Amino acid sequence: MTLTQPDSKKTLEATFKVGILGASGYGGAELLRRLQDHPHMHLTGIASRQYLGKPVSACWTQFADSDFADELVFTDTDSTVADAEVLFSAAPHGSVTDVVAEAVRAGKKVIDLSADFRLPAADYKQWYGSPLAYPDLYAQSVYGLVELHRDEIDRASFVANPGCHATVGALALAPLAAHGLLGKHIAITSTTGISGAGRGASSATHYSELNENFKAYKVAGTHRHTAEIEHSLGRVQAWGKRARTHEPFTPVTVSFNPHLAPMTRGILATAYTHPEGKQLPGGQSVSTEGLLELYRTFYAADPLITVQKDLPQTKATYGSDRVVISVRVDGRSGHIIAFAAEDNLGKGAAGQAVQNFNLMMGLPETTGLMLRAVYP
Amino acid sequence: MTLTQPDSKKTLEATFKVGILGASGYGGAELLRRLQDHPHMHLTGIASRQYLGKPVSACWTQFADSDFADELVFTDTDSTVADAEVLFSAAPHGSVTDVVAEAVRAGKKVIDLSADFRLPAADYKQWYGSPLAYPDLYAQSVYGLVELHRDEIDRASFVANPGCHATVGALALAPLAAHGLLGKHIAITSTTGISGAGRGASSATHYSELNENFKAYKVAGTHRHTAEIEHSLGRVQAWGKRARTHEPFTPVTVSFNPHLAPMTRGILATAYTHPEGKQLPGGQSVSTEGLLELYRTFYAADPLITVQKDLPQTKATYGSDRVVISVRVDGRSGHIIAFAAEDNLGKGAAGQAVQNFNLMMGLPETTGLMLRAVYP
Amino acid sequence: MTLTQPDSKKTLEATFKVGILGASGYGGAELLRRLQDHPHMHLTGIASRQYLGKPVSACWTQFADSDFADELVFTDTDSTVADAEVLFSAAPHGSVTDVVAEAVRAGKKVIDLSADFRLPAADYKQWYGSPLAYPDLYAQSVYGLVELHRDEIDRASFVANPGCHATVGALALAPLAAHGLLGKHIAITSTTGISGAGRGASSATHYSELNENFKAYKVAGTHRHTAEIEHSLGRVQAWGKRARTHEPFTPVTVSFNPHLAPMTRGILATAYTHPEGKQLPGGQSVSTEGLLELYRTFYAADPLITVQKDLPQTKATYGSDRVVISVRVDGRSGHIIAFAAEDNLGKGAAGQAVQNFNLMMGLPETTGLMLRAVYP
Amino acid sequence: MTLTQPDSKKTLEATFKVGILGASGYGGAELLRRLQDHPHMHLTGIASRQYLGKPVSACWTQFADSDFADELVFTDTDSTVADAEVLFSAAPHGSVTDVVAEAVRAGKKVIDLSADFRLPAADYKQWYGSPLAYPDLYAQSVYGLVELHRDEIDRASFVANPGCHATVGALALAPLAAHGLLGKHIAITSTTGISGAGRGASSATHYSELNENFKAYKVAGTHRHTAEIEHSLGRVQAWGKRARTHEPFTPVTVSFNPHLAPMTRGILATAYTHPEGKQLPGGQSVSTEGLLELYRTFYAADPLITVQKDLPQTKATYGSDRVVISVRVDGRSGHIIAFAAEDNLGKGAAGQAVQNFNLMMGLPETTGLMLRAVYP
Repeated sequence: MTLTQPDSKKTLEATFKVGILGASGYGGAELLRRLQDHPHMHLTGIASRQYLGKPVSACWTQFADSDFADELVFTDTDSTVADAEVLFSAAPHGSVTDVVAEAVRAGKKVIDLSADFRLPAADYKQWYGSPLAYPDLYAQSVYGLVELHRDEIDRASFVANPGCHATVGALALAPLAAHGLLGKHIAITSTTGISGAGRGASSATHYSELNENFKAYKVAGTHRHTAEIEHSLGRVQAWGKRARTHEPFTPVTVSFNPHLAPMTRGILATAYTHPEGKQLPGGQSVSTEGLLELYRTFYAADPLITVQKDLPQTKATYGSDRVVISVRVDGRSGHIIAFAAEDNLGKGAAGQAVQNFNLMMGLPETTGLMLRAVYP
Repeated sequence: MTLTQPDSKKTLEATFKVGILGASGYGGAELLRRLQDHPHMHLTGIASRQYLGKPVSACWTQFADSDFADELVFTDTDSTVADAEVLFSAAPHGSVTDVVAEAVRAGKKVIDLSADFRLPAADYKQWYGSPLAYPDLYAQSVYGLVELHRDEIDRASFVANPGCHATVGALALAPLAAHGLLGKHIAITSTTGISGAGRGASSATHYSELNENFKAYKVAGTHRHTAEIEHSLGRVQAWGKRARTHEPFTPVTVSFNPHLAPMTRGILATAYTHPEGKQLPGGQSVSTEGLLELYRTFYAADPLITVQKDLPQTKATYGSDRVVISVRVDGRSGHIIAFAAEDNLGKGAAGQAVQNFNLMMGLPETTGLMLRAVYP
Repeated sequence: MTLTQPDSKKTLEATFKVGILGASGYGGAELLRRLQDHPHMHLTGIASRQYLGKPVSACWTQFADSDFADELVFTDTDSTVADAEVLFSAAPHGSVTDVVAEAVRAGKKVIDLSADFRLPAADYKQWYGSPLAYPDLYAQSVYGLVELHRDEIDRASFVANPGCHATVGALALAPLAAHGLLGKHIAITSTTGISGAGRGASSATHYSELNENFKAYKVAGTHRHTAEIEHSLGRVQAWGKRARTHEPFTPVTVSFNPHLAPMTRGILATAYTHPEGKQLPGGQSVSTEGLLELYRTFYAADPLITVQKDLPQTKATYGSDRVVISVRVDGRSGHIIAFAAEDNLGKGAAGQAVQNFNLMMGLPETTGLMLRAVYP
Repeated sequence: MTLTQPDSKKTLEATFKVGILGASGYGGAELLRRLQDHPHMHLTGIASRQYLGKPVSACWTQFADSDFADELVFTDTDSTVADAEVLFSAAPHGSVTDVVAEAVRAGKKVIDLSADFRLPAADYKQWYGSPLAYPDLYAQSVYGLVELHRDEIDRASFVANPGCHATVGALALAPLAAHGLLGKHIAITSTTGISGAGRGASSATHYSELNENFKAYKVAGTHRHTAEIEHSLGRVQAWGKRARTHEPFTPVTVSFNPHLAPMTRGILATAYTHPEGKQLPGGQSVSTEGLLELYRTFYAADPLITVQKDLPQTKATYGSDRVVISVRVDGRSGHIIAFAAEDNLGKGAAGQAVQNFNLMMGLPETTGLMLRAVYP
């Protein structure tokens, strides 16, 4: 891991020159943690306006005074882009859209962790309030929810990395969507820790305001991840597990309702629908055991997904790139209730970005990923 | 506040001899905090098997070395019952059922914080797995959800204090039930802090297992508070705000799904239903503003309920007996989403018990209650 | 509690027109919580630049939609001062120094929670880097650490309310200072929750940076409360429990080292000294039991102080105005270790301010105070 | 990582058959997390009485439904010992002393994370209240505080892994001890998260009792890690950085005072001493910069130690095996204040155990260790 030359231990295998935009945010930190042990990366730049020219330890105490930190100095955006073959953009939404666009046009491979290229023009306008900046580049992008778009991502050049809530929301319900088991009404309670709000300081991230507090925010169709979830479920309804980013589909409508828990990391999506008499593929009636089997089959080839009978807890994913999923039928009310837990900075951001990198470069999918949670 | 004789400052007004069963649990501690400043109570006994004969400070550090603690010594169950005119029972479910029954038969006024007398025989058997111990006494009891049973509680002798989740679940949806706005499907995500699990130590209450963790538990029709919520909503559908504990009603079916957040106190219920084209009383279509007005009207005379446009947060109720409620219509999906927050040890337990006491004794409803949260 | 006229229930007793400067900070909120039930206050103004003209509920969710909140609207500084007989100033250090000075000169009684009038000119310059603004008014002020200056505060006109760390640091060691038991070297580890840093947002108050984190800050003679502690101990050495703000004394030197724990409220001071062969007043050698007795005697008449054998914990003071103190002798090393816990917003700020108000007005010392912690 | 045969990827290099006793405790879980990626281990047994015969996922949700978890089943003690060349014992103090003794006598290499072999007979009796079980085996053991005993540990057979508080306490002050800079009086405030108390449930680990709470425990010469710290500092005074477990030394006396913060992981030691006019090696007077240089030199060859000017915070070590150290001189009082932070389950337990394993087996010291904290 060096800015000057590839690690000699890595020379027998392919390495790629990699740059990070937005390296001083939480997404950037988690990218650095994964990249340091990734055997196919040669880090050529870490851009940050705030920390330009300073060592990585000035920004991140966890990297202080190590070999890693001594060699790494924050770089400017231009050189970061120029020196990289592959670019991770972890800068805030809208802050480096033009830079990303230029890099894509210059033939660099890009994984964009922002929302800038996640939605078609009409939806982007509706949810973000401004026109989609580069519709032509959106048309070249792939939506990087790996378990639903793996074929598209394989050897792709430009991937829009999904939102944190959007990842668990879609994964919790995708098996139902694939088998026509979504009911007319879908409601999701998605509860997150605060790190998803970023490193910026505000009353929304103030310890005294959050600790011993639980609340809802941006409910009832006002949170932007709603659109991503609706598109994902619509695509799976149309195309199954081999969802297509740019093919037609009929989106479903979801009432998405995020909540905030007093913790740093972790999201748990609790998703409700009502199958209204629909049946499992084999013709049996909907049951917890039947759905667990259906979910296990759906995610059988996905190394980051654990389908389990026990209810998921976010701590089982802390610091890792795993997703833990379960499902229940409420026999009294008839609801299906699906659960999916992740670390919002892992599979919900940096972990999925590296997973996308691996697929884009033809590497084993979990190379460099964090496969075990820090527990307790 | 003394075991020997009434406080002279209180002699001009009526005081009642009061005993507490289960005074060494969290519910008991919160009763003590409210009773110490209650002008109409003369505490004659605080029963605890574990702490019998010891001063209150041996159990509760918050009362250490105060006048309050010096005078109070834990008493045995028999003398506690014998010396009291009014009995609060905060002991665990099933642990003092016979004692409570005997006290009721002896003509003492009782507020029972346990689940022993909250459900009719058939429901009790279904949810608790054993027969209802005293069906005849259940028939004399009143369900103490004050805002829905105030008339019954007024001058009542025996009140079953509602469960913590049951209180916010019912209050969040009661205005809809009263106006026929509940849809066919109702699902509730109810998120609580851990203090509701009591002071007993287990892996379920272990700090290292709970901190930085969010999870669901007892979902899909397995949590016992489901029955209380269904009954409350059914009663309000039948009788409106003047619900009757023992009159016939058609219960609604609810998918109740509790979750656990890493905090000590607080519950937020997030309740989903779908009015499916039903209209507001005046004939308008269902809207957020219309529902807020309907909620405000419904709870206009309830001093502990705040209906507000802003989404509730549990910290606004911390240490208090308040309930904060709001409601939204998701215009895209058609869902109504109702929210209610409380302190599970306040309105969810000890606060409502004292509120019931006040009504039973003909005192002003909020006497001795905690009307302001500790914030931040 | 009204801006227009005194509560009729209060008319039989004296009430004082009271105004608050800085009412939108945490200190202001805690003043409001105490003032609302204070029987001798008539609140005539609550000043906040940020919330001027808005109802109290716009700033404080815990007061939303209550009678209290409906009647209270944030006022401007001038009218707040003009309408008040007594002024609490909870605005940040240096922000309203001139206003406070003018109010004092106009004959109003003032309790200043800031550091503006806590130190003599030379010390102020040394620790705050700028000249003391009003040396003449400092000469009229009393240092409001009640347990050490009660006689001075009684009927005083102008009180400088102590710092949060300074309160527990001084109270932990004052009995030793009074009896000549302080050793040559004194070191204090003082650990606080984050609310003492105020409501302002910064990386220093960011939830993700603080949670699951413990650290030291401003150690080794760089924290400004060092001076207050040294003065308090010096005064007690000179004058005993009847310390004098403006009489000569020889200050002791303390190594004061604050730490930050992941919690909202609470401070625990752990203070080390080494008596080096000194003896207890009766001539016995220094022992834990002997010191506990000495501490109990020293604080016997202080209603907010609990001296106990068990080690203090901050949760025993949460939301209250109590201080819990204990002391130990380490027989192996010879150290005396003294402990004092408080809620930094209670006795460490608003609670002590109201305690000072009571003494200044000739009221019972604990009127309107919070005598019981919210536990758990 | 398999119970049946070595991983083929590892066959080119030496692998050792490794067993874990006490694999269902927190220390065991952290050993498993490190061993899974360790290239020189072949796990042959994980013993747990409680989970015997069950898959690892029954105990540890973080390993659920993975290849790792599918292959691993909890084993009994006898077969675990029999099948292993190297044994990690993470069982509670005293629970498997005889098993460990037998294994050592049978020629197996052992790293014991318990306190059973950390102290000489007289000290063991004094601090643990019972006789040292195997004085002859203690004589063969090495105290595994790597940075102070590296030469002894190299190729050793039996290592007593240090206590969590003992590790940071000794490391914070060792450079002073090595240069004769410890004063007559030494006091340590050491603040830990709760995971060091283990997975057992009690009121001491109850979430509601710990959250928003800070307290001291076992202070003033009553915590057993006092002895380890005193011995370590005494050995360094006698032998410098090449400390000898069984050579004579004069122990120093320390007042060790542990505190508990509301968090799961992390310890910060804050250590006070007073050099009383002693000078730095070069003859300069003691200063912060001089001490930082001395500390940097002392730990220059230690890959897990970061000496930095900024004050350490525990979060910089979360989930990792790092130790972050700093030091200050309080110019006003003359104190030296040294700080050391670690993850109590990392360098404080499992991380140091694997570090010892590496040295015992002649492997690179940081093989399989966690070099980066999970932050935020």
